[in-house]
Amino acid sequence: MNDEVFPAVAADAAERLAVHWRALAAAELPVVPSGPPGTTLKALPEEPPERGEDLAEILDDTWRTIVPQLVHWQHPGFLGWFPTSNSPASVLAELVTAGLGVQGMMWSSSPAATELEQRVCDWLARALALPQRFAHSCGQGGGVIQDSASSAVLVAVAAALHRASRGRWREHGTEGRHRVYCTGQTNSCVPKSVRIAGAGEAVRVPLLPGTHAMDPAALAARMDADRSAGRIPAAVVATVGTTATCAADPVPEIGTVCRERGVWLHVDAAYAGSAALCPEFREVNAGLEHADSYAVNAHKWMRTGTPCSVLWVADRTALTDAMGLTASYLDNPAGEPRTVVDFKDWQVPLGRPMRALKLWYVMRAHGLEGLRETIRHDVRLAALLAGLIEEEPGFEVVAHRLGLVVFRRDGDARTRELAERLTGDPGVLCTPATVDGRPVLRAALGSPYTDEAAVRRIWSTIRRTAAAQD
Amino acid sequence: MNDEVFPAVAADAAERLAVHWRALAAAELPVVPSGPPGTTLKALPEEPPERGEDLAEILDDTWRTIVPQLVHWQHPGFLGWFPTSNSPASVLAELVTAGLGVQGMMWSSSPAATELEQRVCDWLARALALPQRFAHSCGQGGGVIQDSASSAVLVAVAAALHRASRGRWREHGTEGRHRVYCTGQTNSCVPKSVRIAGAGEAVRVPLLPGTHAMDPAALAARMDADRSAGRIPAAVVATVGTTATCAADPVPEIGTVCRERGVWLHVDAAYAGSAALCPEFREVNAGLEHADSYAVNAHKWMRTGTPCSVLWVADRTALTDAMGLTASYLDNPAGEPRTVVDFKDWQVPLGRPMRALKLWYVMRAHGLEGLRETIRHDVRLAALLAGLIEEEPGFEVVAHRLGLVVFRRDGDARTRELAERLTGDPGVLCTPATVDGRPVLRAALGSPYTDEAAVRRIWSTIRRTAAAQD
Ligand SMILES: Cc1ncc(COP(=O)(O)O)c(C=O)c1O
Ligand SMILES: Cc1ncc(COP(=O)(O)O)c(C=O)c1O
Repeated sequence: MNDEVFPAVAADAAERLAVHWRALAAAELPVVPSGPPGTTLKALPEEPPERGEDLAEILDDTWRTIVPQLVHWQHPGFLGWFPTSNSPASVLAELVTAGLGVQGMMWSSSPAATELEQRVCDWLARALALPQRFAHSCGQGGGVIQDSASSAVLVAVAAALHRASRGRWREHGTEGRHRVYCTGQTNSCVPKSVRIAGAGEAVRVPLLPGTHAMDPAALAARMDADRSAGRIPAAVVATVGTTATCAADPVPEIGTVCRERGVWLHVDAAYAGSAALCPEFREVNAGLEHADSYAVNAHKWMRTGTPCSVLWVADRTALTDAMGLTASYLDNPAGEPRTVVDFKDWQVPLGRPMRALKLWYVMRAHGLEGLRETIRHDVRLAALLAGLIEEEPGFEVVAHRLGLVVFRRDGDARTRELAERLTGDPGVLCTPATVDGRPVLRAALGSPYTDEAAVRRIWSTIRRTAAAQD
Repeated sequence: MNDEVFPAVAADAAERLAVHWRALAAAELPVVPSGPPGTTLKALPEEPPERGEDLAEILDDTWRTIVPQLVHWQHPGFLGWFPTSNSPASVLAELVTAGLGVQGMMWSSSPAATELEQRVCDWLARALALPQRFAHSCGQGGGVIQDSASSAVLVAVAAALHRASRGRWREHGTEGRHRVYCTGQTNSCVPKSVRIAGAGEAVRVPLLPGTHAMDPAALAARMDADRSAGRIPAAVVATVGTTATCAADPVPEIGTVCRERGVWLHVDAAYAGSAALCPEFREVNAGLEHADSYAVNAHKWMRTGTPCSVLWVADRTALTDAMGLTASYLDNPAGEPRTVVDFKDWQVPLGRPMRALKLWYVMRAHGLEGLRETIRHDVRLAALLAGLIEEEPGFEVVAHRLGLVVFRRDGDARTRELAERLTGDPGVLCTPATVDGRPVLRAALGSPYTDEAAVRRIWSTIRRTAAAQD
């Protein structure tokens, strides 16, 4: 029955989405909802329905009950956290992926799902000018789509622990001896993934004075001291584009430190990595020739929608040795060549949807030119906003890199109060944070409908709110 | 530009999917493709496009290049592994989820995404007659949607390690002392997740003689011996519905053993758990009052498509203490009540799509009646197939439970040869496996278009293939 109504209801949903996007683009909807906690819970019945309901009715309810209580990440006034931007191409791809409904855990469970993923990961590696050894086509390495940068770190750390323990880890775990290094500026998901991998609290390496970037000499000293104390340095997670200020750890120097000591280097470029699509921002790739693994969230700045985090490794066997599993019901068909890739061995989950279709649609629909233009557009808007802030007496730009502008008012109390007053504003969402112990506001450009007019509107809202404080 | 063409292209895609489903239902497409490894890779250009292309063209290419090289998990002849079945409701929901493009890591990052998830997890807990303490509405516990049963195990084991170590694990990792227990029949994703959690090789507890189920007395003995040897039993993963034969570990007895020793009990009911929708199959829930966590893959037998794995915990603080993270840019807004749920602390990834919409659409569109009818239909088809096999001289049913039928021919070589001959058959996909050291074939009913006629067709293909062997 639902099969028959599906095309009409799906067409209706697509039409509603197009209307929704126009309303977002025109900032006719508030970026944050106003209902208190429990608003949606109260609107939903406590009991699941016994009888099936019409899809059209459920669709209506979505706009009646759910949409008004969402934070609209695609709203032009959305400058919170880092962007998660989508595009018609990505939405179309999710429709097709769900409709085809295949499961790509192994090559043999849907060959095209695996081969398409190999190809688009290679495409993206090339588009980002990553070292060749990260490509499937070069033999040893390759890319895989994870759900998140957090999972990418987890998988990389597992491979690193396996390598550092010479395989002992598979049987005995971390034995409390392995260490993973990052900094206090690293995204909190990194220490979390390290902890989940059983390696305990990640070591926070000191920063280069006056920066938010890891001090490579301090890293080397810390590793050597750990080794002398009987511990085993297993991995370093360097960040290119930290969440608070978009700072970059010095990957070339860190890479040398790691290489000399045989330690795994994972580079988390969840946000900033996409900038390498543009030749003028390729410095974000500096030093990658020393990295063992590298991850970019295409869902942050490449219009794929979430989830779509791409992880590349230089040596795929490090992953598959650590993560591989066997079971008679997962045996490959007799005669299948061993060169075939089974992505189940590259990730935590066994099953997986056909993740690559989305990246394929987005890269083709936008073309590299279109994706570059997205990056450049957002970088221009960030420069515009930073300029407006700098001109304003009593405001200060704390950090400005790529699409991120971090700023504050004169006085911590006033900055904190400004952040509070802006919370819940229907036209703008900035995320408060703390940098060097002082409160700041972060504005991350990247929502698809943010344009120059929106930035000027956002800025006048911030100015007006600040003026009302004084 | 793409915004404008989107409704028409999406409508076209929906129409194509409906045609595709009709072709599948009529078994007009082969269930497995015939191209050798590399077929899709060769069909895709090595370079990503510089210029953007039309969505309509990309859609065409999907059917030209990708669809012919997929294994069709929704095909009536698909009896492989366990099912991953979708439905128009789930596909519609994926379209809307992608289109709305919100990110629900915290309550404040999209309140409705979080509250909808709380509500539908409670709905499903009620529909499955799970113990009340797994419900959000009861205070301490609650459900969360993970991408997979593997991730559910990982998260549960992390919480268990945290609890067993009294929090020491967060800082020092597993220290090589913690043990997690399962059996040799447990899905391979469980030892894999245990390994990734840094707890080393999971201990395989012996089976009750003549069964594929864990021996609770052997579990108790093993745990006590481990404890005497200075090790720390942290968690047991019991399975209800093993992958090879749909066996069930005796959860009531295992629960008692765990409770007496303060050890975390996770129950993996990835496939069989859905059967509890029907009162007549509620025995799959036996003993759950002793479980700390429980997971069911709604994407296996509830028509949601992948990913949609629901994990419930009895005590949510065990999860959030283990997995929680803090960062100034993730601080909750001032004044937000502490009762609000932030799902980032219930999972590995930081970011997450609005996962609950799909479960909401499916539960409403089918109603509990419809979902129960799906289960009963597949169980009836399995009984039909098992009956046909039993009547056939030279064939033997090795196991038959719920929607799974495991069978073999007389003679291991002949069974193995039959499996090989069936590999690549356009009309049927069964997964070979090994049970008690002997080759078998698994037939898992659950693909949405499999009906009585399809089962009879499948069986005659198998019989014909077997006859050609002799
Ligand atoms: C630098 C950095 N790394 C990692 C993450 C976490 O990403 P995910 O949500 O994909 O786990 C973020 C999120 O904003 C980030 O900014
Ligand atoms: C009993 C059981 N547990 C776990 C899994 C793994 O599920 P997932 O792919 O969601 O990780 C499976 C997969 O078939 C299974 O049968």
